[in-house]
Amino acid sequence: MKIKLLIIGKIKELIYKEKIKEYIKWINKDVHIEMVILKDKNKNHLVSKISKYISYNIILCSLSEDGLSMNSKKFSKFIYNSNKDLIFLIGGPDGFPKIIKEKSNHVISLSSLTFTHEMSILIIAEQIFRAISIHKNSKYHRE
Amino acid sequence: MKIKLLIIGKIKELIYKEKIKEYIKWINKDVHIEMVILKDKNKNHLVSKISKYISYNIILCSLSEDGLSMNSKKFSKFIYNSNKDLIFLIGGPDGFPKIIKEKSNHVISLSSLTFTHEMSILIIAEQIFRAISIHKNSKYHRE
Repeated sequence: MKIKLLIIGKIKELIYKEKIKEYIKWINKDVHIEMVILKDKNKNHLVSKISKYISYNIILCSLSEDGLSMNSKKFSKFIYNSNKDLIFLIGGPDGFPKIIKEKSNHVISLSSLTFTHEMSILIIAEQIFRAISIHKNSKYHRE
Repeated sequence: MKIKLLIIGKIKELIYKEKIKEYIKWINKDVHIEMVILKDKNKNHLVSKISKYISYNIILCSLSEDGLSMNSKKFSKFIYNSNKDLIFLIGGPDGFPKIIKEKSNHVISLSSLTFTHEMSILIIAEQIFRAISIHKNSKYHRE
């Protein structure tokens, strides 16, 4: 299993960038993960850029406030039961094109609250690290 | 209306501390907010320490994954409709004493996911700032 974080819009604040990179480094010890940042603000370009990553053998999970919410244990199971490579798509300030949402295998909600772009990326990175920790039964996640 | 963030356990990571302080500064331009950190690990001491802040004229909101979730707009209304001073209680790695949860006026959930202590504080600070922005109809919050 490989994981890709597909992010629309760059991470502006350095302090978030550093923390996110730290989680990515930790995750990479167990699961291959990479972060791809799509800067394109042109909607049509964006759709074609994202579409390049979509194929029958990956699971596309778009993050959206109105998606399915789960707790960290269920999120861990979700990742490990997928049996395919996963893409988590994090929209920019304008979310992501509707057609992409429709093409997604899952729409997942981190919270019903609206977070900043940087916070959403930090949270998904931390949750993937937590998911691995839960799977490994390490001390990081406490009930 | 005044807001108090009552936090059990110190903020260990500097990068979170800086970002949280920034939100606190921004909030203080409109609403008086202060952050109180309770370091006590002794449970009985903790109950009495927290109890000192509880009175009939404040609204105690404890943060817990199993609490009530709302979107940012509703959270904004919640704050502005309260008509009393508010305390948001953020537990440490062990949460907070059960008796305090029972004494709370509201138990609010930031997410069904488990976050780190630092991330929870950052999120509640950002949400309070966002709540003010929504109330003021500023550009910070985008639908």
